[in-house]
Amino acid sequence: MHDLRATLVRGGTSKCWLFGAEDLHEAILATGLDRDRVLTTAFGSADRRQLDGVGGATATTSKAAIVHRAVTSDADVEYEFAQVGIGDERVEWNSNCGNCATAVALYAVHAGLVRVARGNTTVRLRHARSGALLTAVIPTPYGIAPDEGRAVVLGTEALGVPVDLGFESPVGSSTGHLLPTGRPVELLQRADPWTEPVPATLVDAGTAAALMDAEAFGLSGSETLAAFTSVVPLLTELRRRAALTMGLAGPEDPVLHSIPKVGVVGRPRTYRTTGGRLVRADEYDLAVRMVSMHAPHPVIGLTAAVAVAVAASVPGSVPARHLVDRSAPDRLRLGTPAGVLTVNVERAASGRVRRVVLRRAARRIASATLWVPMSRPTAPAGHPATALPAIRRRARTTTAVSVTPSH
Amino acid sequence: MHDLRATLVRGGTSKCWLFGAEDLHEAILATGLDRDRVLTTAFGSADRRQLDGVGGATATTSKAAIVHRAVTSDADVEYEFAQVGIGDERVEWNSNCGNCATAVALYAVHAGLVRVARGNTTVRLRHARSGALLTAVIPTPYGIAPDEGRAVVLGTEALGVPVDLGFESPVGSSTGHLLPTGRPVELLQRADPWTEPVPATLVDAGTAAALMDAEAFGLSGSETLAAFTSVVPLLTELRRRAALTMGLAGPEDPVLHSIPKVGVVGRPRTYRTTGGRLVRADEYDLAVRMVSMHAPHPVIGLTAAVAVAVAASVPGSVPARHLVDRSAPDRLRLGTPAGVLTVNVERAASGRVRRVVLRRAARRIASATLWVPMSRPTAPAGHPATALPAIRRRARTTTAVSVTPSH
Repeated sequence: MHDLRATLVRGGTSKCWLFGAEDLHEAILATGLDRDRVLTTAFGSADRRQLDGVGGATATTSKAAIVHRAVTSDADVEYEFAQVGIGDERVEWNSNCGNCATAVALYAVHAGLVRVARGNTTVRLRHARSGALLTAVIPTPYGIAPDEGRAVVLGTEALGVPVDLGFESPVGSSTGHLLPTGRPVELLQRADPWTEPVPATLVDAGTAAALMDAEAFGLSGSETLAAFTSVVPLLTELRRRAALTMGLAGPEDPVLHSIPKVGVVGRPRTYRTTGGRLVRADEYDLAVRMVSMHAPHPVIGLTAAVAVAVAASVPGSVPARHLVDRSAPDRLRLGTPAGVLTVNVERAASGRVRRVVLRRAARRIASATLWVPMSRPTAPAGHPATALPAIRRRARTTTAVSVTPSH
Repeated sequence: MHDLRATLVRGGTSKCWLFGAEDLHEAILATGLDRDRVLTTAFGSADRRQLDGVGGATATTSKAAIVHRAVTSDADVEYEFAQVGIGDERVEWNSNCGNCATAVALYAVHAGLVRVARGNTTVRLRHARSGALLTAVIPTPYGIAPDEGRAVVLGTEALGVPVDLGFESPVGSSTGHLLPTGRPVELLQRADPWTEPVPATLVDAGTAAALMDAEAFGLSGSETLAAFTSVVPLLTELRRRAALTMGLAGPEDPVLHSIPKVGVVGRPRTYRTTGGRLVRADEYDLAVRMVSMHAPHPVIGLTAAVAVAVAASVPGSVPARHLVDRSAPDRLRLGTPAGVLTVNVERAASGRVRRVVLRRAARRIASATLWVPMSRPTAPAGHPATALPAIRRRARTTTAVSVTPSH
């Protein structure tokens, strides 16, 4: 066994295990496992219940981030986000996760990766894979890293330290352009040529997104998740059309299920959240129902919220058409199934979007030493251990004692 | 926040968080929370996803045990087993869990709660609520507590330290008698008086159990879980009848769903495990399909395995009638849906059952400090933290910094 330090932090509605890059590097040397294998072993990924590790056996509880001090001056901390397999010993490194970025920021403050200021501390984060820059502002009264806070996010009632998460210069991160087609509205044609084309704003800010007019589906954008479910197959079909139109994929490429984000927007109406709370039409600016892979998203992804907010400030766009009050487009209140999410868009004097800020929360749940086995041959199901071939112990295993069944 | 030490150990197919009784006591004093609340807070029980804690959001991954050195000479370690609520801030203390007992034994060896011998170390455990005594034999070569092992149990392919778990003097633990009715077979009559009564052995060893003849249901006892599912409603009806017959409940008492354990036994036949492996008829002694609450058990509970093994050694009992070879009833190989489980019955010279031993496995997954919040008011769903009333900080919160959203 190798003892690998790790910290479990809840960021918003995700649980993320955070690892110092140096600690992980040591674990790789000590165990002889590669990086992915260290994570899948620590999480117990071989089993879909993750019984033999610290994974939580769901997408939101099987996440990790590797964190180290940034070497360039534009960030304090660099991290990689890992979606760790469940019943599958693979790790996905390509996506980013706003919830885990929030967790990384709180971790950075605790781990001394950033100088803690009196009042508020700003952590500048870079997602290494995409190069995306994020900032996180955390209250640090008396210059002390906070343990506790009273901030909540949509989707959970748990309390945490408030974190203002900013997506820096989010425009064009996937395609280089706010509007990849150059137009604020495109008409997306379904495969069936007899159907009406659907008006959509194709935008690239935070993430690539296709925001469609709820009315084109006979919806308002403020319906229940159950009612919204009926159009999800249609939206996933149009996601493919949008990907081609935005140049995210060619006709021969495999179908992407995560990009662009798709959903519908509509004019505010009074509705009830999934938690049962009544939200009045004047409590928010824009109704949104998004799709997550092949199902309705219970709230809205953070990067999708960035895309909606930026798109709403584009004159003539589908979201902009549904705004009642267009005077303050820099603070947009989105009516999501779980409640109202406020998105703040900060601009330079030139009008360029400098940063989009979301109010999030994080809590450190545990500081741990994970015991990572050196090697892990697969045993045939239901076989006694005595039937297994002997495994040679690695020379490096100096502190671990490996025992064979003596009976 | 209070920093509470805890260790995560997999015992068989369960994940158990283990706490030293002293550490938990300190946490109660420091947080002002009662014992149940410390656990539900650490696990994040308020939420059915257990997002804000270390719980795994399933019955087998939301377990804890409180461990301390025994004060009497018949045991080394005393523990309480806690089934921690999921989406429910309650803790169930009344049951025992063989998997967690296995985890406690490995923990005791690591924590120095028992003197580690050269060769094998025996840990004597007492389950405080029931008074049940268990022994666990763990290989400790060179007198060192083992980190790693190559033992597997039915239901998972994960490797662990081998643990021989013994149930000490398991006969009569619920009723005082091996056969509460005095007879090796009872005929259980269903509510419908026109149906044939079902022959069953009502036994009390490890747990109270009603072991019925598979043939009475037109079954063999070695069928697939899918085929067995059809008789589960019938077996749950007969569980009530068995509880009354065994004197575990009176006619006015509420219906118990966990006691007695019910299932069917039959003569060995070649079958395929849920994992797809072929088990030949001569590889085991008795076919068993048990019910867990209202569903087929994927393997067999450990205490139920004890009951079946002891019952099989009673001449004329339903299990005994199905044994092909009755010459070695002290080592019984049970053919369960997941594969073959071997149960060893050890007897005194008088024939009395001294101990029933099962080969199990355990692995230490993590050693941790859990950050337990001092107080945890419930926030209305989807409300910004700023809407919450201010919470007075407790005087004891000396190391924790509680921050309010500054925005």
